[in-house]
Amino acid sequence: MTEDELIGEIRAIAAVAAPQKLLVGIGDDAAVWQPSRSHRSVITTDALVEGVHFTSAAMPAADVGHRALASNLSDIAAMGARPVLATIALSIAPGTDPAWILDCYRGMTALAVASRCAIAGGDIVRAPATSLAITVIGEVRPSNCKLRSGMLPGDTIAVTGPLGASRAGLAVAVERPELASLPEAADALRAFRTPQPRLAEGAWFGASRNVRAMMDSSDGPSTDLARLANASGVGAVIDAVPVAPAARAIAAACGADAERWALDGGEDFELIVAVATRAFTHLATRFRAHFGRELLRIGYATEEAGVRFASGEPVARAGYDHLAGTR
Amino acid sequence: MTEDELIGEIRAIAAVAAPQKLLVGIGDDAAVWQPSRSHRSVITTDALVEGVHFTSAAMPAADVGHRALASNLSDIAAMGARPVLATIALSIAPGTDPAWILDCYRGMTALAVASRCAIAGGDIVRAPATSLAITVIGEVRPSNCKLRSGMLPGDTIAVTGPLGASRAGLAVAVERPELASLPEAADALRAFRTPQPRLAEGAWFGASRNVRAMMDSSDGPSTDLARLANASGVGAVIDAVPVAPAARAIAAACGADAERWALDGGEDFELIVAVATRAFTHLATRFRAHFGRELLRIGYATEEAGVRFASGEPVARAGYDHLAGTR
Repeated sequence: MTEDELIGEIRAIAAVAAPQKLLVGIGDDAAVWQPSRSHRSVITTDALVEGVHFTSAAMPAADVGHRALASNLSDIAAMGARPVLATIALSIAPGTDPAWILDCYRGMTALAVASRCAIAGGDIVRAPATSLAITVIGEVRPSNCKLRSGMLPGDTIAVTGPLGASRAGLAVAVERPELASLPEAADALRAFRTPQPRLAEGAWFGASRNVRAMMDSSDGPSTDLARLANASGVGAVIDAVPVAPAARAIAAACGADAERWALDGGEDFELIVAVATRAFTHLATRFRAHFGRELLRIGYATEEAGVRFASGEPVARAGYDHLAGTR
Repeated sequence: MTEDELIGEIRAIAAVAAPQKLLVGIGDDAAVWQPSRSHRSVITTDALVEGVHFTSAAMPAADVGHRALASNLSDIAAMGARPVLATIALSIAPGTDPAWILDCYRGMTALAVASRCAIAGGDIVRAPATSLAITVIGEVRPSNCKLRSGMLPGDTIAVTGPLGASRAGLAVAVERPELASLPEAADALRAFRTPQPRLAEGAWFGASRNVRAMMDSSDGPSTDLARLANASGVGAVIDAVPVAPAARAIAAACGADAERWALDGGEDFELIVAVATRAFTHLATRFRAHFGRELLRIGYATEEAGVRFASGEPVARAGYDHLAGTR
């Protein structure tokens, strides 16, 4: 059973526990509910586990905290929302130094302050392995909330930045520490350890009627674009893969395929948007003027289901599947 | 460093990430914020870890799910709030049968439906040990929100039911399975596996101006009453310990002290309330009429700090401390 199949079965079970106030449940970047008529609240939960998502050896405690919160804030950004508050369930392995825990909170707090997000509480429990499960609540105007399900055939698909740098940082931090002397290593490590959630970009896209669907790329476009297309009941063609310069350089030094890192590496936390094609050039121009970066076109939506390259070859879903280790 | 000391340090670090909308942050049963002028939302997070809070051997998967959600709903009840939705971060150990995961969700869903709480989403990750971190959002009228900090000297302290049955259930399920043949074993196991959060009671107390402070008893009154008293800047005397009949019988068969189980065992998820003493008899009479159970007096608040028995002997904080295993 794959992760997405399991989530489908869970969704079927949990469907009966979905009262009227819940507008979007399991299956998008975040759930959406309506606390009152004029408000939409969004909620998302992400867990990071030592040895799976991070190793203390490869990452200072403050960066572990930053990264865990960043991955949740990225889901909030992907809804077009702004964060309000976060809660943290911290599981600590026996023998964990309290100084590690406090540094982890310092990293979370710095990002929370920069993101205008409160840290509201949580739970601390002992466990065989250290992990953080973070929940973030955000708010969005009803008209600005972007789902995965709005992409139409013909829409232009774009990302908010080049991809693969986080995967390159993993290579430098864990697999090939000797590459740390390369000039591009610092960019790669920064992308891996302290990714920046695209909150301003997400809110900006939320305000545009020409942005029809949005999600964040946490597992890489090879997996995430399939999710976006499936949720919208369409397909997609990838005809350009924007590779981060750091990913290009580190992959070359590793003898790895930089385009595959960009497609499958994940954790870049760029936003993927589906934009009405007639409006794309104008939106991209405004994006460049506003953010000083390019909005990078990667392909377009099709009527035919599935995700393919322009050559017609299917894009294999090679992103990390958490269920791969289960029966 | 104890759990409460660590939480104090975390609170100091996270204090800078607490914008205006956050009314209550780290340190109560749940955090409180204000999405709009007429609303209060509450949020709580609790984690359950295999081998620490449950063992799959001692508990069916559906009960693990029930218990994990119940402990969060209990925190919502303790604020006087009603639950709106829950998110679940599920960490699964390698080799976990997907059927276990689905049964766990079935247990959560049944309790969520009974509690009118939506299951809105979450995350599934691979981890060395199975654990569930659940976050629940609730809503409460501004005037009905009860904190830990409102207890005054002279207030009567009471609980919504007798204590120790969950600890007795742990004895039957894990430590002394041969006791399962005792007539009280079924009650003890039910208290341990499928505790009922006191949602109706919590909302009812929320509507009473004479209830000055409220929390849920998740770690046992020996620990929780100290937290309530500290938050209110007062002390407390325990002069009655209501022991559940099942705890009395199972403790006797184990040669254990039933009163200590009631004080230290925890996980009974009864509510602890501080009530203006002049109003207590009337409130208890109405409680009995409404819920068909007794509101059980356990003591009173004092000006002098600390928690003591009527004899003057201090009540040792023997509840589980999750930091006991750390340096």
